[in-house]
Amino acid sequence: MLPPAGTEHRAQQMTLLSGMIHDRWTNAEFGHWLAELVEGPLAADPDGDMGANLRRLKREYDKKVKLPKSLVEELAQTAVFAQQAWVEARRQSNFNHFRPWLGKMLALKRQEAESLGYAACPYDALLDRYEPDARTADVAAVLAGLRQQLVPLVQAIRQGGRQPDVSILHRSFPPDVQQAFGRMAAARIGFDFDRGRLDVTAHPFCTGLGPSDCRITTRYDEHFFNEAFFGILHEAGHGIYEQGLLPEQYGLPLGEAVSLGIHESQSRLWENFVGRSLAFWQFFYPDAQRRFGALADVPLGQFHFAVNDVRPSLIRTEADEATYNLHILVRFELEQALLNDELSLDDLPGAWNAKYEEYLGITPPDAAQGVLQDIHWSAGLIGYFPTYALGNLNAAQLFRQADAELGGLDRHFAQGDFQPLRQWLGEKIHRQGQRYSAAELIRRVTGQPLSHAPLVDHLRRKFGPLYYE
Amino acid sequence: MLPPAGTEHRAQQMTLLSGMIHDRWTNAEFGHWLAELVEGPLAADPDGDMGANLRRLKREYDKKVKLPKSLVEELAQTAVFAQQAWVEARRQSNFNHFRPWLGKMLALKRQEAESLGYAACPYDALLDRYEPDARTADVAAVLAGLRQQLVPLVQAIRQGGRQPDVSILHRSFPPDVQQAFGRMAAARIGFDFDRGRLDVTAHPFCTGLGPSDCRITTRYDEHFFNEAFFGILHEAGHGIYEQGLLPEQYGLPLGEAVSLGIHESQSRLWENFVGRSLAFWQFFYPDAQRRFGALADVPLGQFHFAVNDVRPSLIRTEADEATYNLHILVRFELEQALLNDELSLDDLPGAWNAKYEEYLGITPPDAAQGVLQDIHWSAGLIGYFPTYALGNLNAAQLFRQADAELGGLDRHFAQGDFQPLRQWLGEKIHRQGQRYSAAELIRRVTGQPLSHAPLVDHLRRKFGPLYYE
Repeated sequence: MLPPAGTEHRAQQMTLLSGMIHDRWTNAEFGHWLAELVEGPLAADPDGDMGANLRRLKREYDKKVKLPKSLVEELAQTAVFAQQAWVEARRQSNFNHFRPWLGKMLALKRQEAESLGYAACPYDALLDRYEPDARTADVAAVLAGLRQQLVPLVQAIRQGGRQPDVSILHRSFPPDVQQAFGRMAAARIGFDFDRGRLDVTAHPFCTGLGPSDCRITTRYDEHFFNEAFFGILHEAGHGIYEQGLLPEQYGLPLGEAVSLGIHESQSRLWENFVGRSLAFWQFFYPDAQRRFGALADVPLGQFHFAVNDVRPSLIRTEADEATYNLHILVRFELEQALLNDELSLDDLPGAWNAKYEEYLGITPPDAAQGVLQDIHWSAGLIGYFPTYALGNLNAAQLFRQADAELGGLDRHFAQGDFQPLRQWLGEKIHRQGQRYSAAELIRRVTGQPLSHAPLVDHLRRKFGPLYYE
Repeated sequence: MLPPAGTEHRAQQMTLLSGMIHDRWTNAEFGHWLAELVEGPLAADPDGDMGANLRRLKREYDKKVKLPKSLVEELAQTAVFAQQAWVEARRQSNFNHFRPWLGKMLALKRQEAESLGYAACPYDALLDRYEPDARTADVAAVLAGLRQQLVPLVQAIRQGGRQPDVSILHRSFPPDVQQAFGRMAAARIGFDFDRGRLDVTAHPFCTGLGPSDCRITTRYDEHFFNEAFFGILHEAGHGIYEQGLLPEQYGLPLGEAVSLGIHESQSRLWENFVGRSLAFWQFFYPDAQRRFGALADVPLGQFHFAVNDVRPSLIRTEADEATYNLHILVRFELEQALLNDELSLDDLPGAWNAKYEEYLGITPPDAAQGVLQDIHWSAGLIGYFPTYALGNLNAAQLFRQADAELGGLDRHFAQGDFQPLRQWLGEKIHRQGQRYSAAELIRRVTGQPLSHAPLVDHLRRKFGPLYYE
């Protein structure tokens, strides 16, 4: 939204603010207090809230003090200019316009990794910002297992010979009816409108403005049902997590989301595992048919098949539940190679296209639909992409556990009862804040380390009957 | 937009921020520096920039240090709760729901006035926040002169027996065409889209995010032409002022708008004096007719008459150019009476209705359309309303002067040339920042103190031929 001539001032502001925030975090007196408190009696109880908060704050402090203020400021400044260059490069579909800024950003992110230090590889240091305590090798192993199963699964789906009639989702769906229906569904699954709002933006998001003020947004396409509805379920999933954090821990680690991979698990769980299930629509579909004339002649089964359309495509944000993870793999592998200097910027667009051909069987026709499609790298968000796939994996493993503990969620969903699942997630995930790392949280709640198996099982059980069994 | 349960936290945040900002402003070392600098050689040149900046900063510092921090914080906190109470009161059309909060706010504003001190009356101290150096008695005198002429003028308009056909403005105007047309017009009059944007919000505004990042917003009603188009001209007028401030003085008094009354003069001038003139439409109307099928059969004269519809109405924000000032008079008189304890809150709704009957000849049917229609008092903005009328008065006086100096603006407008006026305003008003007070600026630019005469002349010259001559 930034007007072209506003870049310079925005960069100055972001530089100033990032430096001020860095100064606050790395204040020496704050560091002394933390060091003393974390060794003292307040933190002695290993299960106590105070100790958990102090240990997480100390961990963050120890990271921040390793970063030179000048690097923090330069990263903030570069992100503003690089994002503007990316906007223009994408408009022109011209990678070379963005290339120098990506090169500068990579150099700064390498410095950041070196300053922070890492166990095995520089990517570890960057990944840790979004997925604290995660190791690149562990994430790579889980994603490699997923890829091994997913590529043939998507092939099986494509070769099964069955395809839904997606044209029914492109009929006329009046935006005001979509809004009322989406709002009703969000409230039904547990988003609290007394403590939040649903509004319209060009790029949907969820943001918490305080313990009782969570904003979610969507956009309405009159001629595509999925855009707003599943977008609302997705953002409401993020919002239910935010609304489930303990208000009395607001501003402290125990009152904050543990990682982006867990946050994304909450949005994906409600969007896909709940919102694209047959049981969900057994409850909601009669109401949808009453509201939308366009669905009057569409049987439930046909509708459910259509919202579960699987189709390799070029754009990550529009990808379906099965192929989405392949988009992430492309980015995860490429950004590691870039960071480690195993891939040059000259070769990046070609490497991007080759991976799309290998994993998804399609080749981007231009840079705008290829290597330039995401804003992340321009904003310095390197190490961020795998958290999207971790979100899907976490969601599958949590959903399987909840299903087992609550005795068949489909039965609840078909009756419009989403409270048992929401409460289970609230207790097991939301109220924990940052008490445990994401990996530890998943292990504690599900009894298993994170694995690709629950997600692959879920996809096979859903898509097998629809497409190839 | 605040969700109901978010009020408490918002109030805490605003209290904290207002206190922090107050601490920054009233920092004793800053005060010592200012005191020393303002007496020193840097400020010696009475026409120098540095001296002007220092004197304005010192003036502001001297005001701020008179306010107890606890009062600043309580005002910020009360404004949040009072606004939420006002929202609910208006929804219920129940003044009693808002009354205790208005009482509390008035008590705090009286304390604020006493802390700041004043020359003649407490209202002076409050008015000064929005219109620095203005005196209540002077404003009251100009507005009394205006009222004396305006009430019979509006009666003459109403009794002339002629009325435009406003139904032509309520035909179908596709929002995307409105947007393109409004954007083109804003650019043509001088709003720089390289340094600004036009977006959509429920409540239109203009805000400067930096020296080259000015945001204006509007809203589109498919069945009412005026809403978006004149709204865009209005906000573009504010925006052209913001964009005309000296970037090298950004953040200093010489790089900031002088007063709300001058700011509003810039929006009103482009909206009404330019945008509702016949010459303006001589240039734009053929294009409007090409874009909007709804106007194809409407002659220019009929269109121009319709956008100059004068009609006493209940709601200030929807009022026309002539009656708008009467809405302001009601509020200006009532808020003085409330502050001086000459009017009780018990009697406020009745007094409001009586003044509407007296000045506009209509009586509000309920509190929502009467005393509860504006957010201002709930936000503590007492002393703010007269700046709207001052804006109209300033606009008239500046427009008359520009017209004389530039040799007939209509001739320029009819050719689509708005640069002479924009440049004149840029030089005389925008680039001056806070070098002079608003009253002094008007006197210097027009050679006269502010008077009601130019506005009354303008209204008579425009509305006489249309309505009663």
